[in-house]
Amino acid sequence: MATVYLAGPEVFFADGRALIARKQALARSCGLEPLAGLGKEEMPADKFERGRFISALNENMIRASDFMIANMTPFRGISADVGTAYEIGFMCALGRPVFGYSNDPRHYDARATAEYYHGNVGIAEDGALRADDGQMVEDHAMADNLMLDGGIIARGGIVMRPAGGRVLPAEDLSTFEQCLHAATRYFRSA
Amino acid sequence: MATVYLAGPEVFFADGRALIARKQALARSCGLEPLAGLGKEEMPADKFERGRFISALNENMIRASDFMIANMTPFRGISADVGTAYEIGFMCALGRPVFGYSNDPRHYDARATAEYYHGNVGIAEDGALRADDGQMVEDHAMADNLMLDGGIIARGGIVMRPAGGRVLPAEDLSTFEQCLHAATRYFRSA
Repeated sequence: MATVYLAGPEVFFADGRALIARKQALARSCGLEPLAGLGKEEMPADKFERGRFISALNENMIRASDFMIANMTPFRGISADVGTAYEIGFMCALGRPVFGYSNDPRHYDARATAEYYHGNVGIAEDGALRADDGQMVEDHAMADNLMLDGGIIARGGIVMRPAGGRVLPAEDLSTFEQCLHAATRYFRSA
Repeated sequence: MATVYLAGPEVFFADGRALIARKQALARSCGLEPLAGLGKEEMPADKFERGRFISALNENMIRASDFMIANMTPFRGISADVGTAYEIGFMCALGRPVFGYSNDPRHYDARATAEYYHGNVGIAEDGALRADDGQMVEDHAMADNLMLDGGIIARGGIVMRPAGGRVLPAEDLSTFEQCLHAATRYFRSA
């Protein structure tokens, strides 16, 4: 049975525990063994040391996993949670597959234009897509920064996004389920 | 001579080329060989394929580097650039040191409280730091998500932040220079 690390910002959500439990149950229903969240480990009292402890715990779970499903839906801004981005890079360096998904169907440039630059983006004199502050807006028909999408694709993974143009709410796990099915096919053919 | 990969969002800045050139010159003045930015490679015409191409190019440069200096200063939001976060995770998985810096002196929770939640954050009934939308605000006295700070520290690196409480402008490279000096000491003692 393949083990999967469920990466994503759900741990911060108000209803995070329930959502993670739903994701774990869905993974098990596909014959996958999910590793996610924290067990009953004794945590250090100091907040900084607790941060280091959780970091090491998560890295150990990633190393123990055959692959990763990463929730790349924008978190507190226009891009994926940076902890999830770190974990995708970590798994890609291990050479193992990552299946990413976002509940936001847009390319990065469309989202940055609409939500960060309020439409003030266009083709500049140098031919690049730039905002009115002169900054370049990455424009690679990808869900997020090219290191995330590119690294995932290079290892046989995919980045799933919803069809239909609408941003799905966080509790909608249909895009996550598409990753489960893609991963199941991947390991069946491997 | 140790080779260093300079990770950060400068490639998107209006004055990015000049800033990267200044960082490269500073690295060389410390006896380090910087790998950063793009050469004169022939790029694919298709924007998606170009994204994959640049991703592979950057990963190859990371693999060719002895260590990384990563600009974790918040980019288009309250956290580090997600491409940089991916690269930090990638380097940490390779087991090589990362020296991170942010021109923002604040802990993540202070920045999220001020700039994303406009002050509406406090200790909730469960003892966690939560915003008024019920979401937990990470509170580990770290510059950003615990995976970034934790992963860097676990491999002998550090996360440098300015003293004095003021956010430094992007063109201020004093915190970057502190990373150069820390890295120089690291490789001298290694």
